[in-house]
Amino acid sequence: MKILAVNAGSSSLKFQLLNMPEETEITSGLVERIGYDNAVFVIKVNGQKVSKEQTILDHKVAVELVIKGLIENKIIDSLDEIKGVGHRVVQGGEIFKDSVVITDQVIKDIESLNDLAPLHNPANITGIKAFQAILPNVIQVAVFDTTFHQTMKEDAYLYSAPYEWYTKYGVRKYGFHGTSHQFVSQRAMELLDNPKAKIIVAHLGNGASLCAVDSGKSVDTSMGLTPLDGIPMGTRSGSIDPSVLMLVSQKENRSYADVLDDLNKRSGYLGVSGISNDSRDIVDNMNEGHKRATLAYKIQIKRIADFIGSYYVYMGGLDAICFTAGIGENAPIVRNDVIEAIKVLGAKIDPVENQKRGEHLISSKDSKIKVFVIPTNEEVMIAREVMRLNK
Amino acid sequence: MKILAVNAGSSSLKFQLLNMPEETEITSGLVERIGYDNAVFVIKVNGQKVSKEQTILDHKVAVELVIKGLIENKIIDSLDEIKGVGHRVVQGGEIFKDSVVITDQVIKDIESLNDLAPLHNPANITGIKAFQAILPNVIQVAVFDTTFHQTMKEDAYLYSAPYEWYTKYGVRKYGFHGTSHQFVSQRAMELLDNPKAKIIVAHLGNGASLCAVDSGKSVDTSMGLTPLDGIPMGTRSGSIDPSVLMLVSQKENRSYADVLDDLNKRSGYLGVSGISNDSRDIVDNMNEGHKRATLAYKIQIKRIADFIGSYYVYMGGLDAICFTAGIGENAPIVRNDVIEAIKVLGAKIDPVENQKRGEHLISSKDSKIKVFVIPTNEEVMIAREVMRLNK
Repeated sequence: MKILAVNAGSSSLKFQLLNMPEETEITSGLVERIGYDNAVFVIKVNGQKVSKEQTILDHKVAVELVIKGLIENKIIDSLDEIKGVGHRVVQGGEIFKDSVVITDQVIKDIESLNDLAPLHNPANITGIKAFQAILPNVIQVAVFDTTFHQTMKEDAYLYSAPYEWYTKYGVRKYGFHGTSHQFVSQRAMELLDNPKAKIIVAHLGNGASLCAVDSGKSVDTSMGLTPLDGIPMGTRSGSIDPSVLMLVSQKENRSYADVLDDLNKRSGYLGVSGISNDSRDIVDNMNEGHKRATLAYKIQIKRIADFIGSYYVYMGGLDAICFTAGIGENAPIVRNDVIEAIKVLGAKIDPVENQKRGEHLISSKDSKIKVFVIPTNEEVMIAREVMRLNK
Repeated sequence: MKILAVNAGSSSLKFQLLNMPEETEITSGLVERIGYDNAVFVIKVNGQKVSKEQTILDHKVAVELVIKGLIENKIIDSLDEIKGVGHRVVQGGEIFKDSVVITDQVIKDIESLNDLAPLHNPANITGIKAFQAILPNVIQVAVFDTTFHQTMKEDAYLYSAPYEWYTKYGVRKYGFHGTSHQFVSQRAMELLDNPKAKIIVAHLGNGASLCAVDSGKSVDTSMGLTPLDGIPMGTRSGSIDPSVLMLVSQKENRSYADVLDDLNKRSGYLGVSGISNDSRDIVDNMNEGHKRATLAYKIQIKRIADFIGSYYVYMGGLDAICFTAGIGENAPIVRNDVIEAIKVLGAKIDPVENQKRGEHLISSKDSKIKVFVIPTNEEVMIAREVMRLNK
């Protein structure tokens, strides 16, 4: 059965077509710069990327193009072969404790959360509506970045702020990357053959977050009300004293909103190093002795170790740490230095295994905590949710 | 030798007169509402508080009143008996790596840090100048809340923000309560008879912070650029996603600065419970089943445990945890619940010892980590610094 997994941004649309329940990729691609004259449509045909530049007016045109591309390239013979579409939606608030079959009411509910994710939710809805128009008879499912974290307890998700902010405006910790944390922690439980395992997933990409998973449930995570909070990232500061906004705003005569934008877009690796938001550039420059790249790197490792210490205490132990996403899967040095930073917990890395690629165990035999690399696959997780809800 | 320890606020002046090196209190008192018609001067005479309401124009008048009070109540016979004055100064920035004998240049340097502590440093300087005017020939020493933390490494004190914010404006983690953390950790090292001990000090008062002390040096602390950061407090939120400012400002049509003020003054215990910023009220109401008081309490305990976990990992072990300040010294329930929350580290409390007052060991014999109550004494620490620099 063919299922489409879709991730719509404000001017982009990523998709992957999967064979389910085999969980194999049939093809994938993306449309970029939707709304512009020089939009680009990319699709994988027989493993090769085929790309075409053209004017793409809106998401509906983009979706038509994707479907046409699938048929023209003989990836599918007809629309009927697509049995379901799963949409990534960033913010599900407290409304969505689970993935959900999309109805008019669901769209309204997602829209009611726009204030919590002003950049993402409206774009996700645009994608949903475009697919509904083209595939009106196919089941559409919304899979939220936040749902997996809805199992957190109040002491973990509430901020120590005026309680009315929570009841009136939904100010709390939601956490993100839930689909990835769920996928990776489920796989780790299989590998450990232990459904009660205490696991920390380190999803380290340009966006990055940690998640503490106890018996399959997220009990804490590093991102907060928004993806700004937590560990430092490519361009985001992670947790920081909000008073920084006051001082910088005063000194530079800029609005707080403007400075907050800097915390999202010009901080993290980029802000500290002054070079790049890309982990590879940071590591390369660090290896050549660049002081600020080294600092950017060390601050992130330190903060990752801080969260691991907190989660070890909160869960009352730790069976496994899993590295995933761009940096987690591809940067042995980061994995090595994180495990080195938490060695008091008894975790030890196998330096040979750590250099290998793909899903594998990288802890040494005498490590008290198993350390895994587990490539994440949000598309598979989304397709699984479509299958589960398509009864 | 008689030494005065002074803590000047914008409209207040607290003082303690100590016999040194015996470190005994001779008297103490305070002046409140300086600048108002109904100012109050309180001084302890033979263990009894004597208070008097009157107009007190400014800090200079307040200091004159204190000196006159000391003489009139026959606590001292003449001014000459005061051999030194130590002043608490909140923000020493990166300029002051140690306490310092006050000179004109020192005052200028403290003033240069006013932007980092706009509410506190100007008031501290007012106090210094008032004492200089009345006691021109007596050594005056500045003791900073931040100095003890100047031993933190870059990965601990730098935020992952634009590096220029650090070099131009001093945006970094400074930490506060340094005098208390130093006093308590020094005492713990004595009690442990181990100058290389790894210690966490939990200074829990209406303001609250944790400090990781390794071999007598602060290596990490929970407060940040300002005392807002870190664990939740009486009225402060502690660490929180700065994006909260954006959402609440939008929803309530108020400025970010105004919302930031809420994080300082209407959050923490007060904000979550809706009842009180006072730990005793929170605990009383929790014991009566008040839901929001319970939440306020649990969130704080959880965040304290989070930091302890981080510091355990960062120091690579832990010999002792020390509770101090109002809550730390007087709330056995808080101590019990913090230790319970971190039990995976091997800390265990002795429930009988935990009920006792004053300096004592409260961990059980089989606890892997010693747990102490050590009453803080910032005045003694300040007086010690005056003695050390008065050569």
